[in-house]
Amino acid sequence: MQKIISSSLQELFKNDPYAQQLGFEIVDVSPGYAQVTAVVSEDTLNFAGSPHGGFLFSLADYAFAVASNAHGRQAVATTVSIQFYQIARPGTRLRAQAQETHLTYRTGYYDMTVTTEDGLLIAKCQGMVYRTSREWESQKT
Amino acid sequence: MQKIISSSLQELFKNDPYAQQLGFEIVDVSPGYAQVTAVVSEDTLNFAGSPHGGFLFSLADYAFAVASNAHGRQAVATTVSIQFYQIARPGTRLRAQAQETHLTYRTGYYDMTVTTEDGLLIAKCQGMVYRTSREWESQKT
Amino acid sequence: MQKIISSSLQELFKNDPYAQQLGFEIVDVSPGYAQVTAVVSEDTLNFAGSPHGGFLFSLADYAFAVASNAHGRQAVATTVSIQFYQIARPGTRLRAQAQETHLTYRTGYYDMTVTTEDGLLIAKCQGMVYRTSREWESQKT
Amino acid sequence: MQKIISSSLQELFKNDPYAQQLGFEIVDVSPGYAQVTAVVSEDTLNFAGSPHGGFLFSLADYAFAVASNAHGRQAVATTVSIQFYQIARPGTRLRAQAQETHLTYRTGYYDMTVTTEDGLLIAKCQGMVYRTSREWESQKT
Repeated sequence: MQKIISSSLQELFKNDPYAQQLGFEIVDVSPGYAQVTAVVSEDTLNFAGSPHGGFLFSLADYAFAVASNAHGRQAVATTVSIQFYQIARPGTRLRAQAQETHLTYRTGYYDMTVTTEDGLLIAKCQGMVYRTSREWESQKT
Repeated sequence: MQKIISSSLQELFKNDPYAQQLGFEIVDVSPGYAQVTAVVSEDTLNFAGSPHGGFLFSLADYAFAVASNAHGRQAVATTVSIQFYQIARPGTRLRAQAQETHLTYRTGYYDMTVTTEDGLLIAKCQGMVYRTSREWESQKT
Repeated sequence: MQKIISSSLQELFKNDPYAQQLGFEIVDVSPGYAQVTAVVSEDTLNFAGSPHGGFLFSLADYAFAVASNAHGRQAVATTVSIQFYQIARPGTRLRAQAQETHLTYRTGYYDMTVTTEDGLLIAKCQGMVYRTSREWESQKT
Repeated sequence: MQKIISSSLQELFKNDPYAQQLGFEIVDVSPGYAQVTAVVSEDTLNFAGSPHGGFLFSLADYAFAVASNAHGRQAVATTVSIQFYQIARPGTRLRAQAQETHLTYRTGYYDMTVTTEDGLLIAKCQGMVYRTSREWESQKT
C-alpha cells in the first residue's frame, strides 16, 4: 500500500506554471515516487522534427521533483544525467516515472524513465536532490 | 575568426517549435559553438517558484543541438549530465553557451553553461552526440 | 536461457591487467550482461578509510566493458555517470552487475549496480558505448 | 596567490592506500583545487590494451577528493559524470586536475580533466560532493 500525501501538497505540485505550459499531468504520487504524462505535440518538436531533448528531460524532471518533494520537505535538484534512446512520434502520449533508489536525511537519489504507452523506452535518467530543512506544509498559510 | 555557417542552416535551427514556444533566441553560432538566450518568465517557474530545471536544461540543450549540428551533419544527443548551481530570479535574461570539447567522425562532446547577464553561473552540463551520415543541406529541396 | 559466448572471448575478457591487479573476477557473462566481484581490501581504501570511489567505479566499469563487448564487436566507453550511496566495510565482497538497457548498431546503453552480498546498494551507474566495426574474434590469430 | 593548506592535511591526503597502489602523486593542492599525476603502466591496461576507464576515473576522482576536502571539512562524493575522449599510450604520464566551479555550505561542484603532458585531453568529468560538518583537523589526535 502506498503512503498517502496530503491534498494540499498535491495541489502545490500541480501549481507548476512550467509544467502546465507544457501540458504535464501528475497521474500518481507517493513519497519517493511519481508518475506524470504528456502528449508529444507539434510544439514540442525540435528543428529535426523529433521531440526536443529538453521536452523529454522536462517531463522526467517534473516526476523527479514531485517524487522527491512528496516526503514533505523541500528538495532541490543538484545533478541529473539523461540518456536518450529513441524518438517518439508526434501524437504519442509519454509517461515519466521517478522512483527513489536511496534516501538519507540530506540527500535523495532517483531513477527516471520516459516511456510510450506501449512501454517503449524513450529516455532514462539518474537524478539527485539535496533535501533542505524546510517543510512544505509549515510554510503554507 | 569564426567559420561561417550557411543562412539556410541558420534558418533550419531557428525553425524549432519547442525553442520558439519557450522564447529561446540564437545569438551566435559557428561549427561546434552556439549561444542562445531566454528570459525567465513566470511561465518557466516550478512549484517552488524557481526557474524549472527542465527550462534550464532545455536552454542548454538547444545551444548543444545548434552547436553540434552546425558542422552540417545531423547529430543526435545521446547523453547529457547537468549540475544545478543557483536560482535565477524571474525577469532575468539567461545565456546558454555550448562549446565543443572533442570531435571524432562519429562522436562530438560539448560543455554547456547557463549564466545570467552578470556572469552568475546557474547550471553546467556535459553532453555527447552521435553524428549520423546525413547532411542537412543535401536533404533540403 | 542466456546466450553463450565463446571461450576465446571469455579468455580475452579475463586477460585484463588492471582488473587482475585489483582482484576483479568475472562471475557471469552473456551478450549485454556481466557480473563481476571483488573484495574491499585495505589497499582499496581512500584517505577517509572508505572504499575509494575509483575502486567502486572500476568494478562497475569492468562489468560494463565485459557486457558491452560480449556481443563480439569492440565497444568503447564514451560516457558514464555514477552515484555513490553507501560505504562498504573492508572485507566485504562487492558484486557489480551490468545490464543492457538499449542497443543500436552503433550505440549501447547499460545500467550498472554495485551491491554487497546482502544486497545493500553501494553505487549505481549509467553508461554508454560506441560500437566499432571491429570483431574481436577475427582479429585473434 | 593560492591559499596554503596545513602540512597535516597534506599528509592525510597522501595517506591513501588505493592511490598509492596505483602510483598516484599529488603535485599541487589548495582549497578547491588539486593536481595529481600517474604513469600509464602495463598494469593499468584493460583487455583491449588501452588504459582502463576505471584507471582514468580513479585518477580524476583522487584529484576531486583532494580538492574538495582541502577546505578542511570532510566532503563525500555523491555523483560524477565522465566522458572518455582519447586513448593514452602505455608509458605516458597523465595529469588530472580538479577545479571547483561552485561551493555552498553543504555542496561543492568540480570539473576534472585528465590530460597528457602534451596537453591532449583524455577524459573530462563533472563531480559533486556533500560537505559534512566534520573537520579533518579536529579529529586528528
